[in-house]
Amino acid sequence: MIEQNSVKAVYATSTPAVRVQRFKNATTSFSPPAGDDAAGKGERNNRIASMIFRHLEANGAPSYYLDTINTTDMRVREVRPFRLELVCRNLVAGSLTKRLGLEEGVRLAEPIVEVYFKNDALGDPLVNDDHVRTLQLATPSEMAELRRQTLLVNEVLIGMWRACDLELVDVTLRFGTTVDGQIVLASDLTPDEQRLWAVDDRTKDKDVYRRVLGEGTSPYGEIHDRLLRAWPSLALGELLGPPEVPR
Amino acid sequence: MIEQNSVKAVYATSTPAVRVQRFKNATTSFSPPAGDDAAGKGERNNRIASMIFRHLEANGAPSYYLDTINTTDMRVREVRPFRLELVCRNLVAGSLTKRLGLEEGVRLAEPIVEVYFKNDALGDPLVNDDHVRTLQLATPSEMAELRRQTLLVNEVLIGMWRACDLELVDVTLRFGTTVDGQIVLASDLTPDEQRLWAVDDRTKDKDVYRRVLGEGTSPYGEIHDRLLRAWPSLALGELLGPPEVPR
Repeated sequence: MIEQNSVKAVYATSTPAVRVQRFKNATTSFSPPAGDDAAGKGERNNRIASMIFRHLEANGAPSYYLDTINTTDMRVREVRPFRLELVCRNLVAGSLTKRLGLEEGVRLAEPIVEVYFKNDALGDPLVNDDHVRTLQLATPSEMAELRRQTLLVNEVLIGMWRACDLELVDVTLRFGTTVDGQIVLASDLTPDEQRLWAVDDRTKDKDVYRRVLGEGTSPYGEIHDRLLRAWPSLALGELLGPPEVPR
Repeated sequence: MIEQNSVKAVYATSTPAVRVQRFKNATTSFSPPAGDDAAGKGERNNRIASMIFRHLEANGAPSYYLDTINTTDMRVREVRPFRLELVCRNLVAGSLTKRLGLEEGVRLAEPIVEVYFKNDALGDPLVNDDHVRTLQLATPSEMAELRRQTLLVNEVLIGMWRACDLELVDVTLRFGTTVDGQIVLASDLTPDEQRLWAVDDRTKDKDVYRRVLGEGTSPYGEIHDRLLRAWPSLALGELLGPPEVPR
């Protein structure tokens, strides 16, 4: 095993620069609340992330995803990660309410992109382009490409989730550079990395959302079900076998 | 009186769009420490700020300053202030040590410009260009001009202070738009707005500074004396009369 966190484990393969990542069932403190079905979380995250990567690729947004090899595992390209997190925001929520004093739920005229320095000891601080240059976290042309891809991924995701009657409030993206020098998306776009609000069926008012999905059920299951209904062409279906014996 | 804070009071004049500001003797919690001579602070701030504005103007950096009319008062142009504070940093100090995890005193290869949203209730948060656009605090072309002027002012100040054996660690700038639409510097560049370190006379090592000026004496007096010695052509000297009877 190369590395693991609470969401997935990453393994080497016999092919250089190709890795396998296995999604775990354990929930995280950052997971959406409300009765999560831990037993199926790994498989659902793998299926959700795979569908999203395939849709992004079809829309010109490159990622490290190669293919899905069984119910919990996908093959990805090895990347050198940027120590940056890019957050793209379409509606006001979370830390933006505190930073700008805007009310939660306000729709932004244009998306806001924020860049954070991934550094646990410093608490992942917001940084600007001068900070990025000083710490040599990315060159100016790399930053421009990260921004371009962030806005593209955001646009594609908005459309994808609208078809599911879900509103993409904000999304957190990480990127990396492949061995042949291509900058690609290298985060998994599971429900843990996206703030999704459901259009409130009771009010039918597009600006009122149920802010916690799947009350009393699994948000992973709810999101997977909605994706399958709205995007049947992306479904991986019965093609997938069970995962191999754990390594 | 139009407005006042702990440092100065601003008055209207009989000329439209021209104001008089009077520097006060009161010290602030943000003033440099160590036995300040409150009695002469207003006059010293007025003389220091006047010399700096005149030097900036001679070097192509516009400000709201018009002229100095007596020992504590200067005439300035009325401006519509941007609700932004631009901080330009040449050495690591203060909040930058916490944000980037760099050691205090490290010299930056290029200056870092930071933009803060002036909002007491929010604690003057760091913002990026997308935040500025969302809050309509400045247009993109205004932001470019604010950055250009910030870097120019910083360059001029560095040279000015080096001649005084002082190192400009960082400086906080505010800008405004005059009634005829010109963007100009509209903060007073007293010692309260600049972090100045003195080259340590004992070590003669240019990267070691006494970080508190004028131990046991007034930093305002020390800085004013150094300016007069290094830049005699900027001195206002005996030309200035006493302030008028307080309004």
